[in-house]
Amino acid sequence: MHEIQTLGVGTELQRFFAAARLRASDYGPHYVALWDSLEQASSGGKRVRPALVLAAFTGLGGTDLTLATPVAVSFELLHTAFVIHDDVIDHDLDRRGVANIAGQFTERALAHGAGHQAGAWAVTAAILAGDLALSEAHRALAMLPVDLEMRGRLLDLLDRAVFVSAAGELADVTNTASKHPLTVTQVLSTLEQKTAVYSFEAPLQAGAILAGASAASIDALGAFGRLIGVAFQLTDDILGVFGDPAKTGKSVLTDLREGKQTTLIAHAGTTPGWAEIAPFIGKADLTEADAEAVRGMLRSCGALQAADELATDHCTRAVAALDPAAVPTPLRELLITLAGTAVNRSR
Amino acid sequence: MHEIQTLGVGTELQRFFAAARLRASDYGPHYVALWDSLEQASSGGKRVRPALVLAAFTGLGGTDLTLATPVAVSFELLHTAFVIHDDVIDHDLDRRGVANIAGQFTERALAHGAGHQAGAWAVTAAILAGDLALSEAHRALAMLPVDLEMRGRLLDLLDRAVFVSAAGELADVTNTASKHPLTVTQVLSTLEQKTAVYSFEAPLQAGAILAGASAASIDALGAFGRLIGVAFQLTDDILGVFGDPAKTGKSVLTDLREGKQTTLIAHAGTTPGWAEIAPFIGKADLTEADAEAVRGMLRSCGALQAADELATDHCTRAVAALDPAAVPTPLRELLITLAGTAVNRSR
Repeated sequence: MHEIQTLGVGTELQRFFAAARLRASDYGPHYVALWDSLEQASSGGKRVRPALVLAAFTGLGGTDLTLATPVAVSFELLHTAFVIHDDVIDHDLDRRGVANIAGQFTERALAHGAGHQAGAWAVTAAILAGDLALSEAHRALAMLPVDLEMRGRLLDLLDRAVFVSAAGELADVTNTASKHPLTVTQVLSTLEQKTAVYSFEAPLQAGAILAGASAASIDALGAFGRLIGVAFQLTDDILGVFGDPAKTGKSVLTDLREGKQTTLIAHAGTTPGWAEIAPFIGKADLTEADAEAVRGMLRSCGALQAADELATDHCTRAVAALDPAAVPTPLRELLITLAGTAVNRSR
Repeated sequence: MHEIQTLGVGTELQRFFAAARLRASDYGPHYVALWDSLEQASSGGKRVRPALVLAAFTGLGGTDLTLATPVAVSFELLHTAFVIHDDVIDHDLDRRGVANIAGQFTERALAHGAGHQAGAWAVTAAILAGDLALSEAHRALAMLPVDLEMRGRLLDLLDRAVFVSAAGELADVTNTASKHPLTVTQVLSTLEQKTAVYSFEAPLQAGAILAGASAASIDALGAFGRLIGVAFQLTDDILGVFGDPAKTGKSVLTDLREGKQTTLIAHAGTTPGWAEIAPFIGKADLTEADAEAVRGMLRSCGALQAADELATDHCTRAVAALDPAAVPTPLRELLITLAGTAVNRSR
């Protein structure tokens, strides 16, 4: 799904960054390095959001890719901006084992004999890079040669994506202050707000709107996007404890050490098993043996099964939202395949 | 100049924040509080940028304030976003003696028994608030009911404002790592990049473009804006050491304690007096007596006079840029008055 359709997005992003780098060279090597880091941050991902924009657009009869490509670029850069600012909030210096923007500017400060300023360089570079990506996400939509009404609808989607994601990000941070497990409902709404809306709902709906789709089609894709977005996150949370790091590329200790509020924990918190589990959640020096013990307890208290069922249930409801009268068969089949990958991922 | 013309901007901002607060209430009290903090951050300033947009617009024949007001709002929110993210970079918890967004969310974390998370709440709230303000700055321009060419020109201005300000902010932070005084040229270009472009050049040019002004008028206002923006900053830097805190509301110790790179310091660094001055610059526990000694040395080495002359020179060149053939007399006189206030401020 991704490889073919997002080629134009990659080309467009390369063109944008080449132009930005050229302009940046008037302002010295640090600024060029910032743009290099930003381009790197926007590369290497799976381009899920652009693929969703383009799938909805072409699947609903859209043909002019010179319109759809900037919209796809917009959602990719929105994602880049959010990831970068999220890393500042989490004080992360790397992402998937590679130095992120803050990490790169930490190294840069050291290389320039400014080690005592490394923290300031890192935060500054990452905040600015996120601002630049966010600005271009807006600009890409704003410059579309479409009429005022169409532009308004697309800008409303982007606005909702930013507004709801910010609410979710804030909830995520304030939730971690909670001394008790959240409810399953609280966890689900944070997942929807922080990720599902901007990553699934909005890109699908943007492609549909741009294709001139009916309100029924747009609504169906929106409902599908919210549900499948949550299903992906639920599965990620399960894999974050029960996955195979060799396959997922993700540690199975980090979420437990950070005390991440997942539906696993939310469910466990309602069971008699919680008293035994609680001491391990948020334990900074949790060992693999501890984690194995926690896994056993999460299984026996029913939390794993409950989380699995929640993910499957969201997936089923997502597919059910794809009313055949509103979503043409090829697009429907593509999205059903996508839905399958949300839950059936290797443990 | 400001009171009358920016009334509509205040009304528009109030309307925007009222709607946002209503939407935010679906996402819980912390998010409503974030919007309250953001509104507060956008209030209380002098609304210089909106005033410049409106002055240029009406001064060059523009009449439809329903077009100019959103542009003025855009530049005010851009300023709000930059100030908020700048405070994150500087780890500031207050601005002019009042708790800023980070400060308010620090207090909020404490009030909610999340004192150990106060830093995370503060940074998260401030980064998100800046992102929300930046997004609305873009949206306000993008939604203007003007043709594609006009929209493109206005969005290019906003793009340049963001691009150059980010370069200036990065330069500002990397410059502080310098162990030697910067050159006067380096200080001047950072002032221009970080502040003059987005605060003076771009708002004036946006008003002019929207009014359908000639290329000569747009160029003249751009040149004036860059020069007068630098003049304001130069005077601020002088007042930051030689001002009367009772009149400026600004400490005369902070800049010296932080080792701020100003033209005063840049000039002093080229004189034999520097060896005596250097130990006081960046001295965290600098006393008022120390500061008084530094003032004497900055006077005697000629740095104060040089900085004064630079400010006056920029002011003179700014006024000279206002070609009477390109800038109608009432606007020209208004801008000349503004230029006077750039340098003639109470010490």
